[in-house]
Amino acid sequence: MALIVHKYGGTSMGSTERIRNVAKRVAKWARAGHQMVVVPSAMSGETNRLLGLAKELAPSKAASAYHRELDMLAATGEQASSALLAIALQSEGVPAVSYAGWQVPVRTDSSYTKARIESIDDKRVRADLDAGRVVIITGFQGIDGDGHVTTLGRGGSDTSAVAVAAAMKASECLIYTDVDGVYTTDPRVVPEARRLATLSFEEMLEMASLGSKVLQIRSVEFAGKYKVPLRVLSSFTSWDIDINEEAKSGTLITFEEDAQMEQAVVSGIAFTRDEAKISVLGVPDTPGIAYQILGAVADANIDVDVIIQNMSKDGKTDFSFTVSRNDYQRTIELLKDKVLPKLGAESVVGDDKIAKVSIVGIGMRSHVGVASKMFRALSEEGINIKMISTSEIKTSVVIDEKYVELAVRTLHKAFELDQQAA
Amino acid sequence: MALIVHKYGGTSMGSTERIRNVAKRVAKWARAGHQMVVVPSAMSGETNRLLGLAKELAPSKAASAYHRELDMLAATGEQASSALLAIALQSEGVPAVSYAGWQVPVRTDSSYTKARIESIDDKRVRADLDAGRVVIITGFQGIDGDGHVTTLGRGGSDTSAVAVAAAMKASECLIYTDVDGVYTTDPRVVPEARRLATLSFEEMLEMASLGSKVLQIRSVEFAGKYKVPLRVLSSFTSWDIDINEEAKSGTLITFEEDAQMEQAVVSGIAFTRDEAKISVLGVPDTPGIAYQILGAVADANIDVDVIIQNMSKDGKTDFSFTVSRNDYQRTIELLKDKVLPKLGAESVVGDDKIAKVSIVGIGMRSHVGVASKMFRALSEEGINIKMISTSEIKTSVVIDEKYVELAVRTLHKAFELDQQAA
Repeated sequence: MALIVHKYGGTSMGSTERIRNVAKRVAKWARAGHQMVVVPSAMSGETNRLLGLAKELAPSKAASAYHRELDMLAATGEQASSALLAIALQSEGVPAVSYAGWQVPVRTDSSYTKARIESIDDKRVRADLDAGRVVIITGFQGIDGDGHVTTLGRGGSDTSAVAVAAAMKASECLIYTDVDGVYTTDPRVVPEARRLATLSFEEMLEMASLGSKVLQIRSVEFAGKYKVPLRVLSSFTSWDIDINEEAKSGTLITFEEDAQMEQAVVSGIAFTRDEAKISVLGVPDTPGIAYQILGAVADANIDVDVIIQNMSKDGKTDFSFTVSRNDYQRTIELLKDKVLPKLGAESVVGDDKIAKVSIVGIGMRSHVGVASKMFRALSEEGINIKMISTSEIKTSVVIDEKYVELAVRTLHKAFELDQQAA
Repeated sequence: MALIVHKYGGTSMGSTERIRNVAKRVAKWARAGHQMVVVPSAMSGETNRLLGLAKELAPSKAASAYHRELDMLAATGEQASSALLAIALQSEGVPAVSYAGWQVPVRTDSSYTKARIESIDDKRVRADLDAGRVVIITGFQGIDGDGHVTTLGRGGSDTSAVAVAAAMKASECLIYTDVDGVYTTDPRVVPEARRLATLSFEEMLEMASLGSKVLQIRSVEFAGKYKVPLRVLSSFTSWDIDINEEAKSGTLITFEEDAQMEQAVVSGIAFTRDEAKISVLGVPDTPGIAYQILGAVADANIDVDVIIQNMSKDGKTDFSFTVSRNDYQRTIELLKDKVLPKLGAESVVGDDKIAKVSIVGIGMRSHVGVASKMFRALSEEGINIKMISTSEIKTSVVIDEKYVELAVRTLHKAFELDQQAA
């Protein structure tokens, strides 16, 4: 008998038929003797419907002007789906109770629409579990110190589930989603892509932030901080699949050093399209350049990803970085108008047809030559590398967008990711 | 400057367009210098949609088995509409904040789906009012002593509004609805029916319970208990109608003795169709008959309305009462199976084609001959009276259903209700 947290996304909760399937699955786990806490998202489409109504009512106002009320509004979606799941469980003969974030309570700061969880009181939940009830806790939301409802932002239900699992010291947090795990790379690009049975927490962070949108990145950070074993698995298997089989399916994100020792050098290939590269050329090499350039960009709320400063030559240097393609034009104009004149740089050039491909693997820490193997594989295919960025567990290259599939396939093969790890 | 409570029903909140109109109306009152508290219902259709989902998930279970979760579910409707109204007000440039029942808090007992309000804390609301904000409080819901969400049952938003007005000692509670006030009788039956400018609290109670479904009867009782001046008025006038005109429109339900003194003897004619009459004949006239008959009926959750026990003759008596026509067959069977044998009564007879017509008026207290005037008017039209029931401020007769329109028109004319009161 263990304490298990299940999290179900909006698609898994998308209709009464699907909610009934979730109830049957949870009932199976409860009947196997586990103490069950379930964190559901709102029914798919519901949050967008509600926010659409708000937008109709305040067409000319920034959402930040009424974000407290947006949170009151959006929080109703999870409260409704949680109550519906409790009803479905009771209909299956399983005692169940649902709690909104404020009832637990899940305490957060007061940053409406993007609040951060500060603490979770487990007393009430534990009393229900001890009384044999399944406890359903609304995802995505909490309450601040003044009793206002807050939400955690898009995908926040993942974070809620992990935070609940951490507070309750759950044995495992199972994230049910519409994919059956984390893959070595996108199977649409590489048909040989293989599901990873385990992945280290650090690798998952890099995979998630690099575009494998399986888990919200904050939830992975949270899991890392509190060492919550996370499993990503499919909610579209039949609910009556054997529980032991189900418990081993998907991908386990692990914190055990032993498990990491046995891992392959490279675990996966992540990639993002829709990137753009911008270079400021001939910048006088004085202290504070990076801040002068990127400070202005950050002030305009533009996210910067890879940053490269080339070697200085004749007291001048080139400074390059990547942004999302949507921000490309705006960034170029901003630099030309505000930064170039002040900085005394020569020019701004850019390229909005690039992509980023990364190899991710905790084994890179202890294996030399991994990056050079990557560069060689790409060069053998005639793929020109425009930027390189490295960390302890990943190496990223920026290349022409047209080569992205070729690069991913090449690297997937070069690192033998289609083979089962030893 | 006064503290005013507005209540808007589901139809008034039925679309973003209508919510915007409510916001403009409330903004007008706020700009006129009033402190405004607004209690909205859920958008029309929303509560039924949510309860429909619950029914799909638990088709074979009685709703009472999961009523705690039904309240969690249903309460989201008002939380969403309240947040939307706050956003609409802010879009109009009026500072506004919405609170769910638990945030105020509105304390209730633990009778899920039909909870009763026990107390309302006004501190938080008053602080917002003093800071110049319009305060929106979800109707229909509260929180019990253990922190569970409760709802007040259908139409509970009226009660919420009156309770808030009582707790805040508001100058007036304005109930905006889809009719423009309380009429002397149903205008569909009597085209000459006239809107009443004022009505006493006791008369409103009788009018409401007798089928003039303008206000939920519990809200009227609540208003009576705490002497909250209630005004029923239309939300379908243009929002920019002159505020002084609007403040005098509709029907004011009053508690002032002076106002009552000037009232007409009879204020209105109420009626209900769909009634059925049941008589138990030849009942041995011993103590406890009424309990033996009606106890069994009440135990079966059947509401009894008019009750008549005829004079005893030869140690036997006849006992008659009315029930809703839907309960007719069930009541007859219940009496035959369970009550008749035990009681030693002769037989049960009934009539399911009857209606009840009542004259209501606080002036009847001090005017003799009102009832006999009613009986004469009906007899002149050849309408046979089957049962009579009287109270201090109303006289009801049970007649054949086919005569109901004729009876109402006859009485409306006999008591000169088409003439403006002096």
